[in-house]
Amino acid sequence: MHSFTPTARIRKSPFYRATLAEGVTSFTPYNRMLMPTGYGDPEKEYWRLIEAVSLWDVAIERQVELKGRDAADLVQILCPRDLSNCAIGQGKYIALCNHAGTIINDPILLKLSDQQYWLSIADSDVLLWARAIAAERGLDVQISEPDVSPLAVQGPKSDDVVASVFGDWVRDLKYFWFQPSEVDGIPVAVARSGWSKQGGFEIYLMDGTRGTDLWNIIREAGQPHGIGPGNPNACERVESGLLSFGGDTDDETNPFEIRMEKYVDLDAPDEVVGIQALRSIVSKGIKRHQLGVILDGDVPHQPDSDWMSIWQDGTRSGHMTNCIWSYRLKANIGFALISVDAKPGDTVTVDMAGTSVSGRLTRLPFV
Amino acid sequence: MHSFTPTARIRKSPFYRATLAEGVTSFTPYNRMLMPTGYGDPEKEYWRLIEAVSLWDVAIERQVELKGRDAADLVQILCPRDLSNCAIGQGKYIALCNHAGTIINDPILLKLSDQQYWLSIADSDVLLWARAIAAERGLDVQISEPDVSPLAVQGPKSDDVVASVFGDWVRDLKYFWFQPSEVDGIPVAVARSGWSKQGGFEIYLMDGTRGTDLWNIIREAGQPHGIGPGNPNACERVESGLLSFGGDTDDETNPFEIRMEKYVDLDAPDEVVGIQALRSIVSKGIKRHQLGVILDGDVPHQPDSDWMSIWQDGTRSGHMTNCIWSYRLKANIGFALISVDAKPGDTVTVDMAGTSVSGRLTRLPFV
Repeated sequence: MHSFTPTARIRKSPFYRATLAEGVTSFTPYNRMLMPTGYGDPEKEYWRLIEAVSLWDVAIERQVELKGRDAADLVQILCPRDLSNCAIGQGKYIALCNHAGTIINDPILLKLSDQQYWLSIADSDVLLWARAIAAERGLDVQISEPDVSPLAVQGPKSDDVVASVFGDWVRDLKYFWFQPSEVDGIPVAVARSGWSKQGGFEIYLMDGTRGTDLWNIIREAGQPHGIGPGNPNACERVESGLLSFGGDTDDETNPFEIRMEKYVDLDAPDEVVGIQALRSIVSKGIKRHQLGVILDGDVPHQPDSDWMSIWQDGTRSGHMTNCIWSYRLKANIGFALISVDAKPGDTVTVDMAGTSVSGRLTRLPFV
Repeated sequence: MHSFTPTARIRKSPFYRATLAEGVTSFTPYNRMLMPTGYGDPEKEYWRLIEAVSLWDVAIERQVELKGRDAADLVQILCPRDLSNCAIGQGKYIALCNHAGTIINDPILLKLSDQQYWLSIADSDVLLWARAIAAERGLDVQISEPDVSPLAVQGPKSDDVVASVFGDWVRDLKYFWFQPSEVDGIPVAVARSGWSKQGGFEIYLMDGTRGTDLWNIIREAGQPHGIGPGNPNACERVESGLLSFGGDTDDETNPFEIRMEKYVDLDAPDEVVGIQALRSIVSKGIKRHQLGVILDGDVPHQPDSDWMSIWQDGTRSGHMTNCIWSYRLKANIGFALISVDAKPGDTVTVDMAGTSVSGRLTRLPFV
């Protein structure tokens, strides 16, 4: 843990004051904003997510809005997944790739109308990227970052909490679908989504001046269900096999290496950015893939926050891209980005904080 | 001050271990890396820069390398400043703009050869941007982030320190010019540059495994001259009128608003990104400009780290984009991005941390 210096370069979330009031103890920078990463009791926060319901400031999932006559064309040009069947009110998980087929973000696409889309982004500058492509192709589309900030409600009790605020219709929302709504005059979109596998919603706040109000409304509605503050949970996301773009990927990672092949349609039109490169990657065969690693031992490790080398038979076969103590598996686990010659069941050793730790490879997810 | 959580998303500098050994106390995220922002005694660190020599880990100034047959074409396409007279070994301060004429970065361009350039960037993803433009225009250029990390030596004694390590030839380097060199087998480029007005160099380390070695060599050579650890200094840079891209700019800032008009050539070719928009901005006239603010009172304020509203005659005329206690002026000072109707000498009030503070406008720089 280190301290960081406040600066106008790093923007604050509409929920910032609410999280301070909740006793947030640490943050991470993400999309040049601050995201809470803890409230002082990691294990309690973990079990709250697994067993009850947790409230997360994920305003750092910025929206890149594509609006105008050519918005639908642009979104398809940016994304090598066939979006022709995406309905208004539907979201889809997509991979944005550059011209070399390297993944540059893994957003959720939300279709608000035939001429309006949001890309709810991971940690890279999709606003810059989308503007470059749109302008170079002469498309008629306005690209902006609107005043929209997601608040996640995650965990098995989240249906009850969100239904008590917005109505029982939210129980019928399908995964990644969303609907505009409001509470106490606060405009929102309610989506069934979130960066956990415990179920839940993301409430897209559409008025940045009402962050504390929205936080408190959800907080109060959740009291009977054991709600409390939380954040994208490092342990749960690794157990569940959820990708952290920029953490588990590098500057050469393509979607096929990281279990995203089902989000790429190789027969997408040639005008889609990166499609030729993606076809070439498939025809040549990938060199790396993503597996799990379960380390030996039953004591939490102090992992490095950088990638850790993985060795097999005296050769470096890849990297462990994250490592966390799993409260459910009672083991240190993480992801491997590793040679396709490495298979589930293989034994490995991992360079970790100056020592060598043994373990074995497994499929993802862990649970 | 808050704590932050280490993550593989946020890369570490080759000088990271050296700065820990020096007792670094805080960091800021920048280009998805950590930059030191203090070693525990801000006033001592300030005077060390003003009166002696200071050593800064500025590896966060990442290099975007453009290399290949069309590299010169691309760099001119990205930049609305005439680069035809840029010599090999010369650097130039430039504004990168998007198609709307909005500034997206203010790097130093370094010309290594007719087919190789570095953009030494501020805090935005120029790698993503340059790749988009190059690929969309079909240019034959390889764009990468090489293993290059600047270490800044700043302050009036920096010539003596750097000359004692690399030789007296460094004293003859002109501003922004650079030359490849080496010390103890460590490959570097030595440039006369740096984000202060106290004079100095940036030593571009070209082998990330030798960061601690290079730090210690400079540190030892600087002992007779009073060297010590430091970082881009919030007080000195405001006194000196140096821009912080992303801190003093927003998503609508053009170069003419922030005193960069001399770096824009309106007769640049039409193929330059943003040039039509820049011509249009000039013909219509800008709406904002950048001035200084000197606040009344002689006690250091606790400023907000967000932009602060500036009021004149009951109307909000702009924002104060930074605020710092000046050790030399014995006043709280900062930059205003403000209506062109506001002039040096005008009195203003500023919303600051819940109170209203009076002051007056002035030209930049302050000293």
